[in-house]
Amino acid sequence: MRTRAAVALEAGKPLEVMEVNLEGPKAGEVMIEIKATGICHTDEFTLSGADPEGIFPSILGHEGAGVVVEVGPGVTSVKPGDHVIPLYTPECRQCPSCLSRKTNLCTAIRATQGQGLMPDGTSRFSMLDGTPIYHYMGCSTFSNYTVLPEIAVAKVREDAPFDKICYIGCGVTTGIGAVINTAKVEIGAKAVVFGLGGIGLNVIQGLRLAGADMIIGVDLNDDKKPMAERFGMTHFINPKNCENVVQEIVNVTKTPFDQIGGADYSFDCTGNVKVMRDALECTHRGWGVSVVIGVAPAGAEISTRPFQLVTGRVWKGTAFGGARGRTDVPQIVDWYMEGKIEIDPMITHTLTLDEINKGFDLMHRGESIRSVVLY
Amino acid sequence: MRTRAAVALEAGKPLEVMEVNLEGPKAGEVMIEIKATGICHTDEFTLSGADPEGIFPSILGHEGAGVVVEVGPGVTSVKPGDHVIPLYTPECRQCPSCLSRKTNLCTAIRATQGQGLMPDGTSRFSMLDGTPIYHYMGCSTFSNYTVLPEIAVAKVREDAPFDKICYIGCGVTTGIGAVINTAKVEIGAKAVVFGLGGIGLNVIQGLRLAGADMIIGVDLNDDKKPMAERFGMTHFINPKNCENVVQEIVNVTKTPFDQIGGADYSFDCTGNVKVMRDALECTHRGWGVSVVIGVAPAGAEISTRPFQLVTGRVWKGTAFGGARGRTDVPQIVDWYMEGKIEIDPMITHTLTLDEINKGFDLMHRGESIRSVVLY
Ligand SMILES: NC(=O)c1ccc[n+]([C@@H]2O[C@H](COP(=O)([O-])OP(=O)(O)OC[C@H]3O[C@@H](n4cnc5c(N)ncnc54)[C@H](O)[C@@H]3O)[C@@H](O)[C@H]2O)c1
Ligand SMILES: NC(=O)c1ccc[n+]([C@@H]2O[C@H](COP(=O)([O-])OP(=O)(O)OC[C@H]3O[C@@H](n4cnc5c(N)ncnc54)[C@H](O)[C@@H]3O)[C@@H](O)[C@H]2O)c1
Ligand SMILES: [Zn+2]
Ligand SMILES: [Zn+2]
Ligand SMILES: [Zn+2]
Ligand SMILES: [Zn+2]
Repeated sequence: MRTRAAVALEAGKPLEVMEVNLEGPKAGEVMIEIKATGICHTDEFTLSGADPEGIFPSILGHEGAGVVVEVGPGVTSVKPGDHVIPLYTPECRQCPSCLSRKTNLCTAIRATQGQGLMPDGTSRFSMLDGTPIYHYMGCSTFSNYTVLPEIAVAKVREDAPFDKICYIGCGVTTGIGAVINTAKVEIGAKAVVFGLGGIGLNVIQGLRLAGADMIIGVDLNDDKKPMAERFGMTHFINPKNCENVVQEIVNVTKTPFDQIGGADYSFDCTGNVKVMRDALECTHRGWGVSVVIGVAPAGAEISTRPFQLVTGRVWKGTAFGGARGRTDVPQIVDWYMEGKIEIDPMITHTLTLDEINKGFDLMHRGESIRSVVLY
Repeated sequence: MRTRAAVALEAGKPLEVMEVNLEGPKAGEVMIEIKATGICHTDEFTLSGADPEGIFPSILGHEGAGVVVEVGPGVTSVKPGDHVIPLYTPECRQCPSCLSRKTNLCTAIRATQGQGLMPDGTSRFSMLDGTPIYHYMGCSTFSNYTVLPEIAVAKVREDAPFDKICYIGCGVTTGIGAVINTAKVEIGAKAVVFGLGGIGLNVIQGLRLAGADMIIGVDLNDDKKPMAERFGMTHFINPKNCENVVQEIVNVTKTPFDQIGGADYSFDCTGNVKVMRDALECTHRGWGVSVVIGVAPAGAEISTRPFQLVTGRVWKGTAFGGARGRTDVPQIVDWYMEGKIEIDPMITHTLTLDEINKGFDLMHRGESIRSVVLY
């Protein structure tokens, strides 16, 4: 069949919206009509050429929601008509990672996904002239119709609006999951969030959900303050206005009883390796936990004195918020529908597929939190 | 009163055994007759001048065992005649750290201890000419008699031999505690220990106690192999005999089911920051935990690509094995007396106080695991 898609022809060039060929689902695969997709930093990272693993031509997009239209042989967990969210982190429930009970990083289809291919080692997309087009993060939600392995779709309730829950496919789950799955923040904790963009805001609402007492936001841009407060931030620090952001956090978190100070938990949502170091070092001696969420430029390294760890700080990271896609994503959709979490104010722009490059421009100018493309 | 002690007069010089003055215990303090003391790498680190916080003249030693001979006003938890192990990490049970339930790093007397002083800001030791001598790590076990705060002594059973349990005052507890308190290793785990010295051997026996399936030891010195095997090591790797130690560990830990490979837990017992990086990177994607135990040279930094953390590895550290001294040390003494852990084969040399410098020579030449001074 044919479908409309925004194709990344080469690194550093705008996407081109065009008709492409899409083959039907093979064994264990499903075809999905994407109804809405967010535009995430990771799409922009790959499109810009900064991603050393980027392959072209490809169809980007990994933050979608839609409806199953066709299933291949052997598919049992979803059927045509089901509402689903595509998962760039699948959940096969059978590989060593899924069975470890310790990680969400399913490895069932890792190798082929990294090569832009379906599990059988081929692509379902091609140009009208027959040139193959690569899949992206196993999702390719910048296409109106796409094909995914069955293990890479989460079935969700049918009354949830596509243009909001698509964001659960990446940003919402990453931010909230980092708090509840990776850091396991407890009621009364003091936490710091570095970077108040699309991920940082979701970390903040995750902290509010977890019952944190103090939620300190750090951003170079003062304009980020009102929205972050709306989601639960209690204190704001702009590093430009203080000499030493680590010392400032230590001071703010001191109490008459605890004169050591430091955050119980910190989160990097910037991707800057210097910020990651500050995030570790501003945590409390003895028990501070710092979680890296941001994706750093290729080759960049984090560093610190090992004494920071020997005196009790813990350095971790998270991918997709430690969430198991098929198990946890439907629950986050429920939380949204029940009003436990908010998404609507973060969807700042809605675009058509033809306007998709405008979404990247808005991101570059820091004007959007999330732009969503509605098919 | 007067006591014999080995005094560190200056950095880089041998200790000098001499008579010194010792004032009696003040309020909240106890005087202890040290019966035996181990010589640890940390003593050597300070004596060499490499420790930027080293102060001289001082009486080193922090791995002792002895008997309470006198208590100051207000002391209630120990009395003359009690057998005790001095604690360089005290346990006041009242400070924010002790009450956090998350760390053993009591901060009640941290500031004065770091300055080589008792909690009232003075020293109990002086030269016969009146020059003050500093305490070291709050212990100064290289003196036959010493004074410590009550919160810095662990009362232990009276049938335990001083010349063995002194090692529980640092090395044994650090190694075993890193496994059970910090890493919380579970039955069946695969673990790697970098550095098979006095600390590494105790990590190995901690892993055996915890029921680890695979205990891989890594050392540049093949001579370390037999003793490590005796304590439970199942595989040995000498980095000199393989191209890439990280890859070698990944290969050894692969199974027909799990073709990703990597250790569940790793421990740095070398103090080398390059080894610390290998120790992190050889752990399993998704859940590997690496614990820094070694103390790095002043100013040295650890580094890695943040992707190592984002894909699920955790970097931690431990001080005194995460053990609460007054609560956990007596239990480790019990384990020794019950035969659950072994100490005797690790005490390779026994010396008199006059021979103490020989203990440092043996350490430099890598010939001893532990030298113990018997008073
Ligand atoms: N680990 C994962 O699973 C995962 C998933 C999605 C996104 N990410 C990553 O998360 C990061 C954040 O994504 P986003 O969409 O929120 O980006 P964003 O651009 O919307 O937000 C980044 C924010 O950080 C602020 N910032 C930049 N440098 C700063 C500094 N030095 N100090 C303080 N604040 C600073 C910016 O002003 C901005 O508000 C990106 O690196 C992205 O690739 C990770
Ligand atoms: N964190 C704590 O609470 C704590 C407590 C006590 C000691 N320590 C530290 O633990 C470390 C180990 O102490 P120890 O007494 O066991 O020392 P040690 O000298 O007895 O043992 C170190 C071992 O590491 C090996 N080694 C050195 N470089 C290596 C390399 N590149 N690769 C592989 N092996 C290497 C040596 O051959 C030796 O066998 C020291 O840094 C010490 O200061 C920490
Ligand atoms: Zn994303
Ligand atoms: Zn899996
Ligand atoms: Zn020691
Ligand atoms: Zn305390």
